[in-house]
Amino acid sequence: MKTLSFDGQRPCILQTASSVGKKEGEGNLTPFYDNIFQDAYLGEKSWEKAESKLLKTNLKTLLEKANESPENIDIVFGGDLLNQCISSNYGLLDFHIPFLGLYGACSTFVEGMILAAMAVHGNYAQKAIALTSSHFCSSERQFRFPLEYGGQRTPTSQWTVTGSGAALIAKGGEIEITHATIGRIIDYGISDINNMGAAMAPAAIETIRRHFQDRNLPNDYFDLVVTGDLGSVGKQITQQQLKNYGLDLEDRYIDCGDKIFDKEKQDAHAGGSGCGCCASVFSGWLYYLLRTGKCRRILLTATGALMSPTSSFQGESIPGIAHCISIERKTDNQ
Amino acid sequence: MKTLSFDGQRPCILQTASSVGKKEGEGNLTPFYDNIFQDAYLGEKSWEKAESKLLKTNLKTLLEKANESPENIDIVFGGDLLNQCISSNYGLLDFHIPFLGLYGACSTFVEGMILAAMAVHGNYAQKAIALTSSHFCSSERQFRFPLEYGGQRTPTSQWTVTGSGAALIAKGGEIEITHATIGRIIDYGISDINNMGAAMAPAAIETIRRHFQDRNLPNDYFDLVVTGDLGSVGKQITQQQLKNYGLDLEDRYIDCGDKIFDKEKQDAHAGGSGCGCCASVFSGWLYYLLRTGKCRRILLTATGALMSPTSSFQGESIPGIAHCISIERKTDNQ
Repeated sequence: MKTLSFDGQRPCILQTASSVGKKEGEGNLTPFYDNIFQDAYLGEKSWEKAESKLLKTNLKTLLEKANESPENIDIVFGGDLLNQCISSNYGLLDFHIPFLGLYGACSTFVEGMILAAMAVHGNYAQKAIALTSSHFCSSERQFRFPLEYGGQRTPTSQWTVTGSGAALIAKGGEIEITHATIGRIIDYGISDINNMGAAMAPAAIETIRRHFQDRNLPNDYFDLVVTGDLGSVGKQITQQQLKNYGLDLEDRYIDCGDKIFDKEKQDAHAGGSGCGCCASVFSGWLYYLLRTGKCRRILLTATGALMSPTSSFQGESIPGIAHCISIERKTDNQ
Repeated sequence: MKTLSFDGQRPCILQTASSVGKKEGEGNLTPFYDNIFQDAYLGEKSWEKAESKLLKTNLKTLLEKANESPENIDIVFGGDLLNQCISSNYGLLDFHIPFLGLYGACSTFVEGMILAAMAVHGNYAQKAIALTSSHFCSSERQFRFPLEYGGQRTPTSQWTVTGSGAALIAKGGEIEITHATIGRIIDYGISDINNMGAAMAPAAIETIRRHFQDRNLPNDYFDLVVTGDLGSVGKQITQQQLKNYGLDLEDRYIDCGDKIFDKEKQDAHAGGSGCGCCASVFSGWLYYLLRTGKCRRILLTATGALMSPTSSFQGESIPGIAHCISIERKTDNQ
């Protein structure tokens, strides 16, 4: 399939909310978060319950900022990294909003935005929300080692962001979702779970190239081409490979995982990752740039690594996927 | 949100494919499966790889039956029960079809059909596929006990179906998807993971009631009202509660989990469950009934139990969700 075009009355991002943990709050994007939680447990008894509360609080913040009640929301498209997506399932319990659960690893936020945009543009919903979360401690326990083990991290490893992002999508706003490219699963045979950036980069490269080709865009069309969480390693591969293909994005290309932490002061190795990385960076900082006109056009690309601990133990490589959406200010397109 | 109505040129189910394991093949619906695998490993080295192969083979069968090549398919909406949905991720790797991953536990097949119907009806895709799988052995290992442990099963426990179902959705066919109701997460506080039918029944009851109410349908509108996999326990609760609400479905109500195995000869306790249960029963037997005109209208309701082993260990109850679609023969509606 080609890149989707949301013609006519376009789906818009009416409001966003971004909530993060202490470390993220001390990173590069401090002023742009709605909530910064100092306690990794958020007052709960387990990290999984903490992540659920993070997602729930973030959704509540979104509804407050948008002055909406849950009854007015037609669908939530959401997911997270935990097994069986329990962060979303328990986090959404009290809202009674129709829910379609997603799993796209770290690509889930953009997957949710694409589906929310389709639902709104096609008049299946008036108001839809895309929502994801991740939590460093619950992810480490599930995907790597229990934190108490104190495992050594490799330089290419990434730091799962404790964060949640949420976007309210409906018609009649200023920040429009104009196009979307749905990704394919791509596997270049990388099996090092401490080098997810390299595993996901090929998928990002393919999806970004398809988006530019399908729309026949010049290299400088977007103010920012953003990947979700390739980190510094995956970012470098992506930048170079796109350039090799004739798509030199120069300094217009950034990566949320590379951006979220302060490299000088914070020890996050190759950068941030997780469902909450791209979600909190977009819902905080990037949406601010769009809203204030500092950016007119952003291509938001979220990448997911589609392995599990079981598949890694069984010697499988890490397939990647990437979806992207083009987000543009209406006034600048008229 | 109210029940969605796909007006005008409706999305249709052009073709289906259904593949199952040995035990399912010896059950009540033997003639309706495309593939019955005698070997639980499908020639692979692990149950997870076997489940991936099951899903992959079933998708291949669907494409062959529909005389389609993967390049002509715009999107696959798919998922499974395994952590990080690895059965779908690895199973789809060779097809290079744009993919949106879902997690709705056992509700995933209908969730996929709703999204495929939206994508096709809204002209975002010409051809979309809904695809799910589950496998008894990979599920037991992940959710309950390793099979080698030989754990005793309770009478209310269900047997995860080894099976995969796939449906090709596009415009211009005979079997139409006319309406869809997207479910909300509902939790009645049941925490017994060996009684999933009772945990999911409240969600099924709410979604079926909403569907009848929103469309203002008489109790005998559908030839069959089908739930995905409540099993005999959940089925009884659902039938009785719907009757209490004035919606007496009499013998028009069936459950795929209750139907798939032979109660006399097969020891499956409360019946079948899993992402592959409703998917293989619909894609095999129910689609046959629709295609041959033996059934004119079916309400297919898939239910999901949204817990994980971790949430159960942490004392959480089991939230349920249910989505339904109305599937009707075009000629009988004119």
